[in-house]
Amino acid sequence: MDYINVIGLVAAAMGGISLFPQLLKILKTKSTKDISLGMISIFSGSIFLWLVYGILLNNSPIIIANFFGFIQALIILLYKIKYK
Amino acid sequence: MDYINVIGLVAAAMGGISLFPQLLKILKTKSTKDISLGMISIFSGSIFLWLVYGILLNNSPIIIANFFGFIQALIILLYKIKYK
Repeated sequence: MDYINVIGLVAAAMGGISLFPQLLKILKTKSTKDISLGMISIFSGSIFLWLVYGILLNNSPIIIANFFGFIQALIILLYKIKYK
Repeated sequence: MDYINVIGLVAAAMGGISLFPQLLKILKTKSTKDISLGMISIFSGSIFLWLVYGILLNNSPIIIANFFGFIQALIILLYKIKYK
């Protein structure tokens, strides 16, 4: 794997894990007022496509990062709908 | 380009544009209390790496989506620091 692919891999993994601190914050504050429903919806779709991409390429780091990322995105989306 | 690459391309573009509704919301409400600094910081790093990745591959859709995405991420980061 060349270094360009490594950059893409790290970028995809960072996108997948970026929601973790957001989820922790929501679980603590139970507040999602300032979070955009459009942002979390489009971002959830993006993470889901990364998961599909990882599965099709059988790329474990992308699959793992985006599997957990997608679960986090769905939980944040549910909290956004519940505590809007 | 095969369909797997198209999925990755759409995923990268959706990640880049997902911050637009969030930025509009912040500009309107001037409030970023519920947004996690960790989330926006890691996500900004991810978008920056996608931009580098797109430039190295000379892939216009990834460059364009993540160029605007990165600018949006930086503005949101500045607002987060200003209106914390």
